[in-house]
Amino acid sequence: MDLSDKMNSKRKGICEIITIGDELLIGQVVNTNASWMGEQLSLNGQHLQRITSVGDTKPDILDALREAVSRAEFVFITGGLGPTADDITKPVLCEFFGSQLVFNQEAFDQVKALFQRRGMEVSERNKTQAMLPSNCHPIKNENGTAPGMWFEHNNTTIISMPGVPFEMKAMFQNQVIPKVLSMVEHKTILHKTIMTNGIGESFLADNIKDWEQALPGNFKLAYLPQPGMVRLRLSGSGDHADELQHIMNKLVNSLIPLISEYVFGFDNASMEEVVGDLLKKSHKTVGTAESCTGGYLAHLFTSISGSSAYFKGSVIAYANEIKTNELNVNSSDIEQFGAVSKEVVEAMALGLKQKFDVDFALATSGIAGPDGGTTEKPVGTVWIALATPKGIISQKFQFGEHRGRNISRSALAALNMLRLTLRKF
Amino acid sequence: MDLSDKMNSKRKGICEIITIGDELLIGQVVNTNASWMGEQLSLNGQHLQRITSVGDTKPDILDALREAVSRAEFVFITGGLGPTADDITKPVLCEFFGSQLVFNQEAFDQVKALFQRRGMEVSERNKTQAMLPSNCHPIKNENGTAPGMWFEHNNTTIISMPGVPFEMKAMFQNQVIPKVLSMVEHKTILHKTIMTNGIGESFLADNIKDWEQALPGNFKLAYLPQPGMVRLRLSGSGDHADELQHIMNKLVNSLIPLISEYVFGFDNASMEEVVGDLLKKSHKTVGTAESCTGGYLAHLFTSISGSSAYFKGSVIAYANEIKTNELNVNSSDIEQFGAVSKEVVEAMALGLKQKFDVDFALATSGIAGPDGGTTEKPVGTVWIALATPKGIISQKFQFGEHRGRNISRSALAALNMLRLTLRKF
Repeated sequence: MDLSDKMNSKRKGICEIITIGDELLIGQVVNTNASWMGEQLSLNGQHLQRITSVGDTKPDILDALREAVSRAEFVFITGGLGPTADDITKPVLCEFFGSQLVFNQEAFDQVKALFQRRGMEVSERNKTQAMLPSNCHPIKNENGTAPGMWFEHNNTTIISMPGVPFEMKAMFQNQVIPKVLSMVEHKTILHKTIMTNGIGESFLADNIKDWEQALPGNFKLAYLPQPGMVRLRLSGSGDHADELQHIMNKLVNSLIPLISEYVFGFDNASMEEVVGDLLKKSHKTVGTAESCTGGYLAHLFTSISGSSAYFKGSVIAYANEIKTNELNVNSSDIEQFGAVSKEVVEAMALGLKQKFDVDFALATSGIAGPDGGTTEKPVGTVWIALATPKGIISQKFQFGEHRGRNISRSALAALNMLRLTLRKF
Repeated sequence: MDLSDKMNSKRKGICEIITIGDELLIGQVVNTNASWMGEQLSLNGQHLQRITSVGDTKPDILDALREAVSRAEFVFITGGLGPTADDITKPVLCEFFGSQLVFNQEAFDQVKALFQRRGMEVSERNKTQAMLPSNCHPIKNENGTAPGMWFEHNNTTIISMPGVPFEMKAMFQNQVIPKVLSMVEHKTILHKTIMTNGIGESFLADNIKDWEQALPGNFKLAYLPQPGMVRLRLSGSGDHADELQHIMNKLVNSLIPLISEYVFGFDNASMEEVVGDLLKKSHKTVGTAESCTGGYLAHLFTSISGSSAYFKGSVIAYANEIKTNELNVNSSDIEQFGAVSKEVVEAMALGLKQKFDVDFALATSGIAGPDGGTTEKPVGTVWIALATPKGIISQKFQFGEHRGRNISRSALAALNMLRLTLRKF
């Protein structure tokens, strides 16, 4: 872009990211920060044109910075802001801007307040975190001791943030993005995300092929698969917000009937949130009896704040003796049908429901792998049962070979079974 | 580096990576290819100095290529080699080198052989995949239809590979790395990662300040914090592998005593793996009685393959009635001391130990937040107890304000309590 473009009062939103840290170059840490920021920028209609990763090495950081500043209107930097010796971003920024590190009272007060909330003393080393380049505006770090830094330099904005993901994310979302958006040309972008479970990406695409081909030119559909679910993100851009919203609603309303049995929620609502809301609204309680999910299903329920209103508890019955002693499963059933069977998983659900006096009890039993599979019951074979006030249902699933994904897909399938049942209560 | 350096017959191993694809910039795909290649290069003693990600846009790819070639001896490119219209790497490479796409019989024979193995016909679209820049040597793709390309250009080697991870990985490991190593100076690089828990980055740095300052010039320490733990990575480089390993061992041996109470493992071992190994070796069993961790602790245990050898099960006692009915906690204790108290958490652990007949029982009770805190017991207050064959221990922790992190830090602290105890058994 020409300098004359950059001199306009409203910018176009040309962005670059520089991530700093040897750990990114030697593969010890995957660069999830960059992809997360890229997604946020894209969702907000900004154009990320490059991501550069360099090590904790002064000349490399300086080179990357000079190049990015010559091309972009906004340069987002993460990493190298910790209180330790290998974190050199701040002195390098000073060298780049020709400024000096000075004590910043505002930043220090924020660090002190964070320590006070945690009932801890501020150390000398933390005091150095309030030493900031003299030409920066500090950005508050709600979750850590390293403040962010905002620089304006020859019509480019340079924003330096910590590399710790949850610190960076809160700062980026709450403070950086709103300010960036106020500086760029206005354009309305709308997104609607439809959460689906129980159908693969290519089958989903087949189901909605005609609908997708008829999308207006200013709308775009993205398939975002992750273990056990596919998110469909519909994005539209235009000049008139109301009109855009109207078309978005129409498009979503015509999409849902095509895939209604797979849609469990919208806009990144998790399955556990959706199910939790349904339980709360119906004033029902739930508990779990878990073998192959090993506590992960209970964890999903209890990861939701306020879940104590409906989640009472679980028995994790990893050993068969726990299944018989605690859940009243017949040991003869385990011998005859195996622990991974309709008979045993239904008995687990019924046992838990009675023992914990809950309205709904979910039970899981399967072969998570990588060992323990047989020809008849290969790794990935999972039985899930749901005991309800009206009886019991159960279903067999065949997932894949990867232990972690088998556990998470089993838990999701169990939640979905409860969701489909709750819709009828 | 000077051109004279690059003219030497043996190179130093200065590498850069360029990953191509819009999906990387809008956050749809996390750049695991780059971190995997970075790890492989590092393990093989090569120096990766930069990773650049650009979109499927000709000028951006050309810029990135020109810059990388001016700095590096080896440039590894992934992505943009598929048969679809948005994959433009090959024509861009032709433009860069001033060469043309020509039909390459060797590459076509390989594609044909792959299709024959899969019992499929070669399509016209696949034939275009054998059109390669005239100045390249094709690199065989064992797992797909897009061949890799090897270019020599002004003493820099440019290697273009497909973006599909398992295609790229096989090509990189089996064909690219061996050839690269034959072209570079030999140099040994060693890494050792020390895993710590229960101490923040800045306090850790204070504890090992003198040790760190006395590190030899060819050794470097990096602090890699993540929720509940800090990894310390010590890296050294030198000409003699044996000598380097000797110094590395000495440095690690002098470091450990300074922070022994916090070190739980080495080289990216997870806490649950370390604890699982200790349980397996000592032939002991474990179970959990969880309130605030809500099943997450059980999940960490059972995420390890083979955990059924030592993990028997859990009671997730989210509701107080489960604590009294299932774990034999006195309801008067809950009334008098509150559910988050030494008395209750110890009773939970003892109740579970007896009920499940395990050697060790861990119990957690805390205020995960964001609601439920009081002045006396703010959000983040967590009691953890461990019942052992020799009695019971318990400890109070004060974590932060974030629910998810309070849960994971509680589970880590519980595992660590068990680890420290198991070392004495």
